[in-house]
Amino acid sequence: MSFTTLPLVDEVDIVIPTIRNLDFLEQWRPFFQPYHLIIVQDGDPSINIQVPKGYDYELYNRKDINRILGPNASCISFKDGACRCFGFLVSKKKYLFTIDDDCFVAKDPSGQEINALAQHIHNLSTPSTPFFFNTLYDPYREGADFVRGYPFSLREGVTTAISHGLWLNVPDYDAPTQLVKPRERNTRYVDAIMTIPKGTLFPMCAMNLAFDRELIGPAMYFGIFGDGQPIGWYDDMWAGWCAKVTCDHLGLGVKTGLPYLFHSKASNPFSNLKKEYKGLFWQEDIIPLFQNLTLPKECTTAQECYIELSKFTREKLGPIDPYFEKLSDAMVTWIDAWNEFNPLTNGATAVKVKPSKSK
Amino acid sequence: MSFTTLPLVDEVDIVIPTIRNLDFLEQWRPFFQPYHLIIVQDGDPSINIQVPKGYDYELYNRKDINRILGPNASCISFKDGACRCFGFLVSKKKYLFTIDDDCFVAKDPSGQEINALAQHIHNLSTPSTPFFFNTLYDPYREGADFVRGYPFSLREGVTTAISHGLWLNVPDYDAPTQLVKPRERNTRYVDAIMTIPKGTLFPMCAMNLAFDRELIGPAMYFGIFGDGQPIGWYDDMWAGWCAKVTCDHLGLGVKTGLPYLFHSKASNPFSNLKKEYKGLFWQEDIIPLFQNLTLPKECTTAQECYIELSKFTREKLGPIDPYFEKLSDAMVTWIDAWNEFNPLTNGATAVKVKPSKSK
Repeated sequence: MSFTTLPLVDEVDIVIPTIRNLDFLEQWRPFFQPYHLIIVQDGDPSINIQVPKGYDYELYNRKDINRILGPNASCISFKDGACRCFGFLVSKKKYLFTIDDDCFVAKDPSGQEINALAQHIHNLSTPSTPFFFNTLYDPYREGADFVRGYPFSLREGVTTAISHGLWLNVPDYDAPTQLVKPRERNTRYVDAIMTIPKGTLFPMCAMNLAFDRELIGPAMYFGIFGDGQPIGWYDDMWAGWCAKVTCDHLGLGVKTGLPYLFHSKASNPFSNLKKEYKGLFWQEDIIPLFQNLTLPKECTTAQECYIELSKFTREKLGPIDPYFEKLSDAMVTWIDAWNEFNPLTNGATAVKVKPSKSK
Repeated sequence: MSFTTLPLVDEVDIVIPTIRNLDFLEQWRPFFQPYHLIIVQDGDPSINIQVPKGYDYELYNRKDINRILGPNASCISFKDGACRCFGFLVSKKKYLFTIDDDCFVAKDPSGQEINALAQHIHNLSTPSTPFFFNTLYDPYREGADFVRGYPFSLREGVTTAISHGLWLNVPDYDAPTQLVKPRERNTRYVDAIMTIPKGTLFPMCAMNLAFDRELIGPAMYFGIFGDGQPIGWYDDMWAGWCAKVTCDHLGLGVKTGLPYLFHSKASNPFSNLKKEYKGLFWQEDIIPLFQNLTLPKECTTAQECYIELSKFTREKLGPIDPYFEKLSDAMVTWIDAWNEFNPLTNGATAVKVKPSKSK
């Protein structure tokens, strides 16, 4: 599979949360420049973030978020990468790709630069196979197929909603693992894309992530983390648990594997530990509850599933810590805001937003 | 991971079903010669099968199987690779590796010959992670670990019972896929080992398969296929469905991925279609029944699980075709034979067997 073309330019936005100048986009220029960027500026809104010339973008800082969402702005985290989901809300495109600003272009074993975005679009435009495992990985890739014994009735697959890419160089480790293995680098290029089976949860990392906004966007809420909250660093994990159970319920697919990007810099494990340590305890209780969760049959959209998940969060996770009651409220606020900017009914008009800067 | 040593020579048997001289073992000599072989000769017992010099082996033909098992010999297929499970029964080792005689040594992308057996032993001696997905694949490999968000309480993993290896060159396709894609060859070396999640079934191929005989041997029954039966070519699929639900119930792990071997020759798709065509229909009904199967809590060994599976086969699969009632009987016979040769109680003595030929 080669990606010499730039697919679906009019149907994809790239969402980047950042606190600094976006010099990293220089390296991505051959692959990203034709696409529209939504930049969500975290932290001090008075900082003037520079975007490399030639890029088409809109930039929102905290003042914009407060102005645009009004009272609903409370559902968007501050001083945390979770703020990226504001970009999911205001995009009007079918597909989103979100990437961190310390991630660069990786090379495949032949030395060729990997067009991560094109691979994601390919993953999202081909089906997933969540109901039975294919031992030769993605059956829709060139040179591969379903192996003997794969039920024929399942070979049509299901629509893919999420494409989770991986990282060469600095792996996505928690603080304890970073502390124990400070020098470990991922050098293994695994040439595979696979569907995560139905009923199996996974740790979704937002560094290199694409999804179908129309299908799963409402469940891609990154929660309230960072400033004023007792926990950080779990925004993407939270979105991953919620999005996976939603995909499983709605019969949508989640893929992981290719594309790789090059993650340049390990973040500080001490500051990570401070942010995440409650999550390290809480996830032990939360994950089994998600594993045993069944959404009501009546829920047929990601919005409906997500409202059920907000109830689950209050009722089942509230006893773990009062924080989860606040999170439950924020989830409802998020869906309110989502519906305002992405109305379901044909008659309604979506609210238009004006960024701080755009080009 | 390099495998310069030959691990666990006293704890591994290699089981090979065949109808021809075992010239293919010449190529495997550097990797297999120190191990003991159990050869199960299919078809005409008067043919004198040649084993390359220097190998330590015992060989059983149909006459031996009939003599050794007596009336229980009916549970071992004739004119079908399923006869390999006779070797599982009479082995006394902890681990078994079974391989087809048209499979040769593959090379990794660096050109190095792959020691498939050593990789299987490594897979079986390191834990599996069936309860949560690790996006960087096997967390126990050198240079890898559990990623951020992986529950710490699950990082000990569970004991691995099955290691399922893959094939370069001729992929394991069913007859319809072979007919449609006669020239497709697998050239993609995916450098990964992964646990198949709990609750997910997979198509288990016996060409390149290793398992812990003590833990899962009784569920590794290859059924009655071939001569006199309405179906062939589903022996390993059958064993795979039964073994996977048994592993899931007992909290054991199943891995797939490395090692690759080189599968030399596509079998005749027309004769395959004749053998397997009932399976192509039946699996559509059988697989959902296996997916919804729950074994009783009281079953704590593979034997006990397998007796339950024989009841399931009679009750749930019998309505599909009367063949499954015969299969259910054969499953009970198999467990009888297994217990005779592998007594659970310390006091009992296992029946000793004498092969046709041995060296």
